[in-house]
Amino acid sequence: MILKKDIEEILNDYDKEKIVICTIGSHTALQIAKGARDENFSNLLLCVQKSEKFYNQFDIVDDVMRINSYEEILDEEIQDMLIERNSILIPHGSFVEYVGSKNIIDKLKVPMHGNRLVLEWESDRKKEREWFEKSKLRVPREFKSPDEIDSIAIVKFPGARGGGNYFIVKNEDEFYEKIGKINLPKEIKERYTIQEYVIGTRFYPHFFYSALDDRVELLGMDIRYESNVDGISRIPAVIQNEIQIEPSYVITGNIPVVMRESLLPELMEIARNLINSSKKLFRPGLIGPFCVELVLTDDLEFVCFEISARIVAGTNLFINGSPYSSLIYNEPMSMGRRICRDIRIAIKSQRLDEIIY
Amino acid sequence: MILKKDIEEILNDYDKEKIVICTIGSHTALQIAKGARDENFSNLLLCVQKSEKFYNQFDIVDDVMRINSYEEILDEEIQDMLIERNSILIPHGSFVEYVGSKNIIDKLKVPMHGNRLVLEWESDRKKEREWFEKSKLRVPREFKSPDEIDSIAIVKFPGARGGGNYFIVKNEDEFYEKIGKINLPKEIKERYTIQEYVIGTRFYPHFFYSALDDRVELLGMDIRYESNVDGISRIPAVIQNEIQIEPSYVITGNIPVVMRESLLPELMEIARNLINSSKKLFRPGLIGPFCVELVLTDDLEFVCFEISARIVAGTNLFINGSPYSSLIYNEPMSMGRRICRDIRIAIKSQRLDEIIY
Amino acid sequence: MILKKDIEEILNDYDKEKIVICTIGSHTALQIAKGARDENFSNLLLCVQKSEKFYNQFDIVDDVMRINSYEEILDEEIQDMLIERNSILIPHGSFVEYVGSKNIIDKLKVPMHGNRLVLEWESDRKKEREWFEKSKLRVPREFKSPDEIDSIAIVKFPGARGGGNYFIVKNEDEFYEKIGKINLPKEIKERYTIQEYVIGTRFYPHFFYSALDDRVELLGMDIRYESNVDGISRIPAVIQNEIQIEPSYVITGNIPVVMRESLLPELMEIARNLINSSKKLFRPGLIGPFCVELVLTDDLEFVCFEISARIVAGTNLFINGSPYSSLIYNEPMSMGRRICRDIRIAIKSQRLDEIIY
Repeated sequence: MILKKDIEEILNDYDKEKIVICTIGSHTALQIAKGARDENFSNLLLCVQKSEKFYNQFDIVDDVMRINSYEEILDEEIQDMLIERNSILIPHGSFVEYVGSKNIIDKLKVPMHGNRLVLEWESDRKKEREWFEKSKLRVPREFKSPDEIDSIAIVKFPGARGGGNYFIVKNEDEFYEKIGKINLPKEIKERYTIQEYVIGTRFYPHFFYSALDDRVELLGMDIRYESNVDGISRIPAVIQNEIQIEPSYVITGNIPVVMRESLLPELMEIARNLINSSKKLFRPGLIGPFCVELVLTDDLEFVCFEISARIVAGTNLFINGSPYSSLIYNEPMSMGRRICRDIRIAIKSQRLDEIIY
Repeated sequence: MILKKDIEEILNDYDKEKIVICTIGSHTALQIAKGARDENFSNLLLCVQKSEKFYNQFDIVDDVMRINSYEEILDEEIQDMLIERNSILIPHGSFVEYVGSKNIIDKLKVPMHGNRLVLEWESDRKKEREWFEKSKLRVPREFKSPDEIDSIAIVKFPGARGGGNYFIVKNEDEFYEKIGKINLPKEIKERYTIQEYVIGTRFYPHFFYSALDDRVELLGMDIRYESNVDGISRIPAVIQNEIQIEPSYVITGNIPVVMRESLLPELMEIARNLINSSKKLFRPGLIGPFCVELVLTDDLEFVCFEISARIVAGTNLFINGSPYSSLIYNEPMSMGRRICRDIRIAIKSQRLDEIIY
Repeated sequence: MILKKDIEEILNDYDKEKIVICTIGSHTALQIAKGARDENFSNLLLCVQKSEKFYNQFDIVDDVMRINSYEEILDEEIQDMLIERNSILIPHGSFVEYVGSKNIIDKLKVPMHGNRLVLEWESDRKKEREWFEKSKLRVPREFKSPDEIDSIAIVKFPGARGGGNYFIVKNEDEFYEKIGKINLPKEIKERYTIQEYVIGTRFYPHFFYSALDDRVELLGMDIRYESNVDGISRIPAVIQNEIQIEPSYVITGNIPVVMRESLLPELMEIARNLINSSKKLFRPGLIGPFCVELVLTDDLEFVCFEISARIVAGTNLFINGSPYSSLIYNEPMSMGRRICRDIRIAIKSQRLDEIIY
């Protein structure tokens, strides 16, 4: 395991005038690159073959480095080169997915924005649930076995590709009928979760926790646009009934949204509770961007499903700022830029070790 | 009843260099606070306990005053203090809901942007309908009694919490079956309206009527995001059929939209007609922000459902301007800012009494 | 037919300091007018009676010229006047629909941005399909006759008003039953296409191909908001089943969206392939704005339905720039402005004949 002490030593040797913001070319890389540019950092994207050309098109991208696979980022040689170049890594969704949270925690010695311990807590469903409960959030009920199903429920599988295989059931019989048809490796299939399907409107608020001044900022909000479920809803019920398509939940994009202002105080409390309990669960707790997946019922009650403890893809809607960010900042402040601003402020005040792990 | 004359006297004593823009901390308060700031006014938010901390977080908020309940704003002492501070009130949706349109008209002597008489016309379904008819707008058919139902229809109840109890019916039998299950006080339940359910796309355009130069401006447009109806549509029809969930229409957020440009001339006519007839119905008519709830059928015909004669929550999408506002203004012009700009222009040209009531 | 040579002669006589950007008052005219203004051109909108007043309201519109019908633009006298005023026409969706692609190619001698030959290829379903296939894009299967229908399918009719008459079928019987009820002229009705109904999320990316520097730019993305299909989805399945409403697909507006960044490299390849094959099919190929209608399946595969080889209405969402445009440009860059920028650059570098046809 890479220790904070190791990172600090590396960071001490960095030339603070020549910090390079680095991430993997995918997910929110363009936003991060532009954020780095706007905060007067150089940027570097690590790209595999199929995306190299794409990222090279953009003037805001300073440097593209070709790697053969995302795991290569763990190679000693590449890590040394990144350290040589004074790189600070920004983890995003694809970064965590491709490299693996365990690998990041155990093997990645390049300094990274945020507390890497959080990756363990967001990627393990049980730990996540513990975190939510410690934060006093309402979570959907879980049915421990199929015979407990007493309402409409959604069956989920672990891992990033899961969304394509989730399914909805009404009762035990339907559970066995449908799981029989799922095409997933046995070890993944057996790790299903049966969760109450909560009906309401979905919201994915984008928060930034500034550890430097202990402040939670709401910087944007989106609704995920998922294939094929968001296509099925346009097929008339009469036809749906006869063709029996099962919905899937593969994220393909994001749509902007704002929430009723009278709910924002409670939303900010949810975010603050998550930060406070994170400090107890994995010191010093979550640092930087995070997003809570929420459903808002018609009683205006928030139900929390998942947390992403890093920059989420929905922030790509607000590369030029959001209605929420413009309440706080006079400049267009994307999440990518906010992260870079955090690093910039920390450099100026010599507090980099408080946000880099 | 508070007379225009009373307001004018109070306004005459105001120090026009020290006007404070004031509203209740909810709904669109952040947007209004920022709008005040952008137009060089101080702002003041009246907050109850649960929202005080939230609004205090924002640098754009100059001052938060704690009140124990929203009705306290009617207390002599508080009103005097607001007048003492040269406050101009901006009524928004929650303001009107919490304080009550009758209370505002009868008891609130603090100067307010816009013609407060409009509040009577937007909150009373019959008056609203009269206004629409005088404006020659197409409105949905109303079935006077359940036995008249000859198409899909929606049953509505008065009051703000109504949305949670609206229901859809196909015929008389279904009406009686469903209304029996509604959990609302008898006096509200008896005041149901049965309205033709018009199928089409919903639009909520945000207008500003500038009385100072007799101009209607289109500043934005949204689609309401309602719980649980916008969640139900993602449940496959096959499952919906078996679980029998009734949709509800509680507004939880807003999604941005633009309308086919070829329909805008007609849309602007609708807005203009509403202004012109308002001048006849309640002189000097509507002043400032308003929003018409529209459904656009597949024959491209507009059907008007309701009017909100004050700033609506959908404008929160455009705190930093909208595609429409950028056709008129070179700066980011939110509705909140537009209201403050109106006041600023009126102060400069000594015409404040034309827009403050 | 109007030859490139004819246009060049006319263009040679233009006073390049006094170019006027001209289009028909509809569709994206406001955006184009503002784009012209932002790039220091005068603008002129040709309007019929019902829209004249509307466009005259806007300060960004320099000049409105009243015409009695859109076809009048083909009149010798009007064309001469436009040429006299050094006009460059910007074709948009309504422009092409109202004037007709054949008329534009055969009779319109006023210089126009882009290669007008493209209009033949986007308006003819067979040619469009050839273009897609040459570009190696996946297209939906077509069933040559009703008895081939072996999956859910959509039946389409040619022409702009078609969307209101499209219908969905599951099999041959349903096809005959439903087409019998369609109210369209026989000659249109007989030209139906039966297309596989691909289920997934819809995306309408807005591209600009700069011929001057052989570059494809992604400037925005939207989802179409269609009546009545997007209204039907909010009606509970149980009710839909009993009332039997057939969905229609009349475009009434647009909603903003961003796509998963990991799909953008492939998306840009699709755009580039279309450009490359267009150069072979109708030299010098597509120039300027275009949009591909895509469905993204839950296997993350793109299926291409149609191409619009001119500015599309969804760009109206981004009059003040989009998340994508802000990755390329430091100023708010709408598609309308991008077109005018193209003309401005071409004037400066004396390469106008490369983009005007």
